[in-house]
Amino acid sequence: MEGDVRVYLDHNATTPLRAEARAAMLAAMDVAGNPSSVHAEGRAAKMMVEKARGQVAALVGCDVSEVIFTSGATEAIAGVVQDAGNVAGAAVEHEAVRIWCPEAEQLPVDHNGHVDLNALPDGALAGKTLFLQRANSETGVLQPESLLDELARLGASPASVFRDAVQAAGKLPDLGRWRSDVGRHASLAVSAHKLGGPKGIGALIAGPEYTPGLMQPMLRGGGQELGRRAGTENVIGIAGFGAACAAAAQDLADGVWERVAELRNVLEKALEAASKKTIFVGKDVARLPNTSCFITPGWRGETQVMQMDLAGFAISAGSACSSGKVATSRVLTAMGFDDAEASCAVRVSLGPDTTKEQVLRFADAWTAKLKKHEARAA
Amino acid sequence: MEGDVRVYLDHNATTPLRAEARAAMLAAMDVAGNPSSVHAEGRAAKMMVEKARGQVAALVGCDVSEVIFTSGATEAIAGVVQDAGNVAGAAVEHEAVRIWCPEAEQLPVDHNGHVDLNALPDGALAGKTLFLQRANSETGVLQPESLLDELARLGASPASVFRDAVQAAGKLPDLGRWRSDVGRHASLAVSAHKLGGPKGIGALIAGPEYTPGLMQPMLRGGGQELGRRAGTENVIGIAGFGAACAAAAQDLADGVWERVAELRNVLEKALEAASKKTIFVGKDVARLPNTSCFITPGWRGETQVMQMDLAGFAISAGSACSSGKVATSRVLTAMGFDDAEASCAVRVSLGPDTTKEQVLRFADAWTAKLKKHEARAA
Repeated sequence: MEGDVRVYLDHNATTPLRAEARAAMLAAMDVAGNPSSVHAEGRAAKMMVEKARGQVAALVGCDVSEVIFTSGATEAIAGVVQDAGNVAGAAVEHEAVRIWCPEAEQLPVDHNGHVDLNALPDGALAGKTLFLQRANSETGVLQPESLLDELARLGASPASVFRDAVQAAGKLPDLGRWRSDVGRHASLAVSAHKLGGPKGIGALIAGPEYTPGLMQPMLRGGGQELGRRAGTENVIGIAGFGAACAAAAQDLADGVWERVAELRNVLEKALEAASKKTIFVGKDVARLPNTSCFITPGWRGETQVMQMDLAGFAISAGSACSSGKVATSRVLTAMGFDDAEASCAVRVSLGPDTTKEQVLRFADAWTAKLKKHEARAA
Repeated sequence: MEGDVRVYLDHNATTPLRAEARAAMLAAMDVAGNPSSVHAEGRAAKMMVEKARGQVAALVGCDVSEVIFTSGATEAIAGVVQDAGNVAGAAVEHEAVRIWCPEAEQLPVDHNGHVDLNALPDGALAGKTLFLQRANSETGVLQPESLLDELARLGASPASVFRDAVQAAGKLPDLGRWRSDVGRHASLAVSAHKLGGPKGIGALIAGPEYTPGLMQPMLRGGGQELGRRAGTENVIGIAGFGAACAAAAQDLADGVWERVAELRNVLEKALEAASKKTIFVGKDVARLPNTSCFITPGWRGETQVMQMDLAGFAISAGSACSSGKVATSRVLTAMGFDDAEASCAVRVSLGPDTTKEQVLRFADAWTAKLKKHEARAA
């Protein structure tokens, strides 16, 4: 390793466990009972789950009765699909969403990654559940909240709306119009490990008119989660999720992400100064405060990731969930970048504790690698 | 509370986290990466998952490639149903299994809870996946392993076999004939929290001929678990699961459960001495070493659970997963007990650390409560 201390700049893939989450998980380790048991040990476990449910609800801005714990956002999404059947999604949705939407059901986006209403075929959303991410994991671009109003104005509203809030939760003060009247039974998914909780736990937020009666639970058996999701609760994970939500809410209140957005801008200015040809994706539209996705034509993203890893920096090319697959980002090609450009993208995503020194150190190291790359290519 | 120290005797509902699992989970908390990320942090997380996979495989006696991590046994069962479609199960299967088997597909059992081949309609299993528990959670009764041979002899073999090994894993040295040639693609489920790991993690063991090609993954999206189960891995939970499996394997090697079986027998002798009318379910057949299910006619199980809870003892009436529902055990009625008898059953399940003093203290307290009950009833 060339750098002496690792710098982790891949917070959109997963972000380290918050101290508050760790403490809550340690406390949960001492609670022996099954939350479904009626004895004292069982009731203590149940109380821990319900405390966390309140913390998740407070961050999301929903009622505790609307929080259904799942093994993560992937399961929450599968649950909505199970219930809705007929779905459509933006072409830039996460793979966990997109896999349920055949090519024909994918809504085209413009060069900034916004759903392009002009390119939407008539009746495309009739009777469907629209899967609409709040923020994109690769680019950080937010879908404009006016989109649902526009759809209503055009008489093209979907039957309901599902918001993938995995990247937005904890980073944005509001999670968008997921409870909009556009959706008869709106829903939303969050994932603990993107906001400082553990991996393997998340929640489906089933909105005010998304009643358990409508829902076909994917996991059946015991009566957990009011019959909406069977299986013994991940008590330790849930406790960590809840504590992470409470800490994330505090960060939002403290303006932590405004500081992070400034660091992201410092980073982009430094890289821009080093490389005139680098393209910053979605720079002119609203983005997550922590995310920078940039294309440096001729320098492959996967090469950049490896070189920066050796230099002591963790960044990524595309979504982590593609499991090491070397494939061109479908998000970027949907936005109109060609394959050559898309293959030269990387994502740098900052965390609440990222420092200016780390960002500048990254910019220096990246610039040095770029110069070497250019020298070899010349 | 009447007792001064709580005694936990509900290990079949869930058993406390083993020290080894706790230590592994603490170590995993410091691993920041996403196992799907290619950088150093991601590779460290991946290594942790793969280490645990080896530990699970070693306990089960399978190849590491056959271990698919899930959010628990409920999800593993749903995965098999998704793939198999056409299922039949013993009438004493766990609710998470039985919910997929319509009444007509439930195989009758005899008074000991063994599948009754004489009562099996011709062709009942043709083309089906047979869900066959290794051990019953409420009674501890083991299904005889000769059953599969008998079915083969009768020319009545199912297309494949799924073994619910949730209660057996870690308590029995072998998990039964789940890889039997009876099943073209046999499978098996285990749950971490029944053997000293955390809640919310388990595994579907997809046998040697249960290929990923056959499997329709319920959770889709990323390429995790070789494309057989999408979603970011529960790294902390998986690490705890693996460590618990290693510790459970050591307990088995050390003969811990033989000692526990002796304690269970001590318990039953003491209760029998106190109450001649108490019936010990499945006492004459092979059972889990730690489980005692007994019916004391006229004294409701839920009342016993509450009274013993107040006295400082955690026990249960039926399966914990029924979430506090007051319902007669379907396991016991399937075994031929009438509703009045079934409603007066409780389960006491011991753990690897249960002591003789605890067992005798329970017997004394239970006997005292019984005497009070009888005095009131008289």
